[in-house]
Formats: sequence, C-alpha cells, structure tokens
Amino acid sequence: MISELPLDQVRTLLAVVDEGTFDAAAAALHVTPSAVSQRVKALEQRTGRVLLVRTKPVRPTESGQVVVRYARQLARLERDAHAALGMGPDDGATRVTAAVNADSLATWFLDALARVPQRPPIAFELHREDETRTAELLREGLVMAAVTSSPEAVAGCSVRALGRMRYLAAAHPDFVREHLDGPLAQGLARAPVMTFDRSDALQDAFVRELGGAGAGGVRHAMPTSDGFAASVAAGLGWGLVPEAQAAPLLSAGRLVELAPQRPVDVPLYWQQWKLDSPALAAVTEAVTATAATALRR
Amino acid sequence: MISELPLDQVRTLLAVVDEGTFDAAAAALHVTPSAVSQRVKALEQRTGRVLLVRTKPVRPTESGQVVVRYARQLARLERDAHAALGMGPDDGATRVTAAVNADSLATWFLDALARVPQRPPIAFELHREDETRTAELLREGLVMAAVTSSPEAVAGCSVRALGRMRYLAAAHPDFVREHLDGPLAQGLARAPVMTFDRSDALQDAFVRELGGAGAGGVRHAMPTSDGFAASVAAGLGWGLVPEAQAAPLLSAGRLVELAPQRPVDVPLYWQQWKLDSPALAAVTEAVTATAATALRR
Repeated sequence: MISELPLDQVRTLLAVVDEGTFDAAAAALHVTPSAVSQRVKALEQRTGRVLLVRTKPVRPTESGQVVVRYARQLARLERDAHAALGMGPDDGATRVTAAVNADSLATWFLDALARVPQRPPIAFELHREDETRTAELLREGLVMAAVTSSPEAVAGCSVRALGRMRYLAAAHPDFVREHLDGPLAQGLARAPVMTFDRSDALQDAFVRELGGAGAGGVRHAMPTSDGFAASVAAGLGWGLVPEAQAAPLLSAGRLVELAPQRPVDVPLYWQQWKLDSPALAAVTEAVTATAATALRR
Repeated sequence: MISELPLDQVRTLLAVVDEGTFDAAAAALHVTPSAVSQRVKALEQRTGRVLLVRTKPVRPTESGQVVVRYARQLARLERDAHAALGMGPDDGATRVTAAVNADSLATWFLDALARVPQRPPIAFELHREDETRTAELLREGLVMAAVTSSPEAVAGCSVRALGRMRYLAAAHPDFVREHLDGPLAQGLARAPVMTFDRSDALQDAFVRELGGAGAGGVRHAMPTSDGFAASVAAGLGWGLVPEAQAAPLLSAGRLVELAPQRPVDVPLYWQQWKLDSPALAAVTEAVTATAATALRR
C-alpha cells in the first residue's frame, strides 16, 4: 500500500501533525490552507482510512500514525542521501534521534556517542525517557532508535539485547544505623526511600522481593540520575543505584550495600527503525560495542 | 469569593481535574458520577463561571485553575495540620513539591535539601523543568515552589532573588584546535554545538552577543545536566557549562574557556505559594541560604 502514496500528500500530512493545524501547516509549506485540506482528503481516499482526528491540535488516528512514521522515515532517507552526496541541509549533518533512559545517559551511553566517527558529521538528538516508555517514542516515529526494557520489537523496528544494567540497594552508613538496624524488609517498610519520580516502582519491587509489602517510608522524588545517586549518598533515603554510580561511592565509604546477595538486574535492548542509514548503523555499532563492555551479560 | 466555596465541591472539582473524568473522580471519591456532576455544577453556579472544559480528559478553564490551585493549597494546609498534630497521613511526612531547573539540581540544590531538618519528616517531590517554564507549574498548582528565571510573581506566590548562575563558554582543547582557531564568533558559526534540548537558546544568545548570527554548526541535544558537561568535555561540541561543573574540568585540562571575559549570568528566583507551612518555610530557608553561597550576587 504505502509505496503508492504520493510524496506531497504524505509530507503534507506530516506537516499538519507537526504544526497542529491545517493553517499552520499551510504557512509552513507555503501553500493555501485549502490545498492542505485537499491533499489530506486525497490521501484519506487513497488509503481508505481516516488519518486525522480534526481536533485542535489535530491528532493522527492509528492509521494516520503509520503514515506519519513512514513520512518521517522518508524525510530521514532523503537527508541521508543529501549527506552522502555532500549536499547536507541546514548544518550539513545527519540527525540521529534516540530515546535513552536517564541511568544509561548518566553511565555508559555517552561513551558510545564519543566512539561514533564524526566524518561525515552526525548530530545527536537525545530524548530522556524511562526505559519502559522509550518504545512509545519509537512507535510515534519521534525517535529513530531507543534503549528499551522491552525485547518486543516495535512495528518496523529491529531489536538487539544490550545486556543487563545492575542496580545495588544502598544507603549512607549513618542512614543504615538510624533506620535499618533490624531485619532488612521490616526496616525498608519504614525507612525514607528515594524514587526517581512517581512512576518509579523499582524500590517497591525490591522490598517485595525480600518479602515485604513495599517501600513504606517517606518517599522522596529526585528526577535526575546523578541527583538520585547523590541524594542516597547524602543520606536522604535508601535507593537502588546503578552499579557504575555506586562503585566509587561504596569504595569511598559514602554508601553501603544493603543486600550484597540481591542485586537487581534490568535487561536493556536497542531498538531501531529498519532503515538503510549509514549514520544510524554507525551509532548502533558504537552503542552495542560500548554496552557489551559496560553492561552485564 | 473563595472563602465561601463549600469544601466538598472544591475537593470534587480537584478530583475531576486530577482523575481526568467525572466517572474516575466518582470512583476515587466513593460517590456516584451524578453526585460529582451536581457538585461541579453547584460550584459553577456559585462562582458564576464555567470551571471545566468537558473534554476527555476534562480541563480546567482559567477560572477553574484558580479554584484548583486553591484546592491544592487547602489540601496542603490540611496535611500540614495533620503533621503538626502528629497524625500524619500515609507515610507521616509533609510533602514539599518543587520545580527546579536541571543545572540547579546538578549543582547546588541538593545541598539545600540536605540542610533541611528531617524532624518532623518532609518528603521532597522534585520536578525537573527549564527555569523559563517552572513558573508554569506553579501557576497550575502542580508544585508549591520553584526556581524560576522570572522575577515576576505568579499569582498567590512570593518571590526572592537567589543569585546568578554563571555559565562559561567552554570546549575540549582538541576541539578548540580543530574548530576554533580563528576569530571566535566566526568559528562558533560553524563549530558543532551542544544544546540541552530544542528549546535551549543559551548558546545562540552567546554567539549573538559576540556579534555572530547564532550557533551555526552541527547541533547536538543532550537533555541531562551532567551529560551536557560531559559531552562538552568529550569534545562532541562547545557549550555553556555551569561554572560549578566547569571548574574541575578546567583545572584537569579537559576544558578550556572560550571567552574568559564573557561569562553568561542567569539570575534565578525562588517563588513559593504564600502559605503558612512550616515545612515549606524550612525548605525556603535552606534554599536561600545555600544559594547565597553557591550562586553569584
């Protein structure tokens, strides 16, 4: 179906979704609003589907999302071709967009980016999102690749296992003395706990693993990865800290492990659009190679 | 006007806004959907304003936002009273919600939290938001306090100046040799640049200050504060790095300053609801005291 869609209509649909209204899309495309409306209608007739919900701003229907994703992939191919031909648009770089969880960004992901050859230039546009929600950004076509916690491929994407990110339950030594001097599960049911944000259930899952009902004490929310580790080291609460961030704090005596036999491993995957893009392939190669040494098997 | 609004109606409106639909609010309040609908209508009649846009999810009108903010402040007072009486709800802690910009979170803000006495316990819920957008979260009543770049008080809030956060234009020494060996403004018009996200215009403003048209090279986006500084130190691009993060990297020779005579200072303010809350007062005291030493006058 998709290969027979006229390019101008597909691009018009994308502009309407990105700009939010037919009028704004018309202004962006330098055509009249009625031309925009006609192209979208023609595309809906051709596909036999309603593609847009006419709200303000407009929203793509499920079928509309398929066409939008296709349009973004097309735009990417075009830019890659431009770059390959040395006729780069704007800044002359190929843009690689990726959604990455905060803990990966704070530990190993940057090393991967530093490995990517910068000839021809690649512009990295990173989006920070929880690993359970990064797949959503792929599905919407907002990013070309993502670090996800789900091995299930998003439609149009390929998946590779990156390894497991290890988290250690930890707290400041004084905090342990004050709040956790008895049986651990009971202590964690009352002790102040650090969370990343309201949807962070990692700490609760850990307490349940130990046989408790959940993290029951005062709940702090600290929505940055380095801030989270620093808050635990400052004695604000206990929390599950990525091994890479915990290691120097443990050696410095600013953290102690609460349950050395019970690390929590979160498997991570790299999902990417199935595109023949040299830039995306270079990033994928650097990401998988870096993850192979930074994450656990 | 507001003091005569029946509490059950105000709380019902808040539940509808938080839950998104009349049915969900009814379930949360353990009443029938028709009771919810009647209370909201009664409140609209009493105020003489439409308070909700009946979309899915519902949205408060501008008048509705005033009532929602009032309802959240009420809920807070109630919880504070509970805490003062030693009859804390849930985890027994008073919750203090604040919106803070990423660079403050990564540099001085955590030191402020560590200074707040934890008797009686306070739970910190932080939201990370650009300093130009934190005021919006205050306005919506989603947070009780915020670090903002605007000295203009949000309705119902008081403002204090915290000081100025200094940014230094910096890059890796190899990056400077490769991209910035001529006049600075010309070099920055072509050199790869780090940005925080698409709305980050700090680097462009700096280039314009130097007489250039803007940061013209490959644009990377790295949406975490520590990741941004690390990316500049890794040679991915040049960027404006908070002084506190730049200092150790400059001494280690991993960064050089591009324009030592031209730091960029961003004034920051603390805005908070005018509430007689001991917990909020304790946080405000710690925040202003820490900022006084960490930020520039």
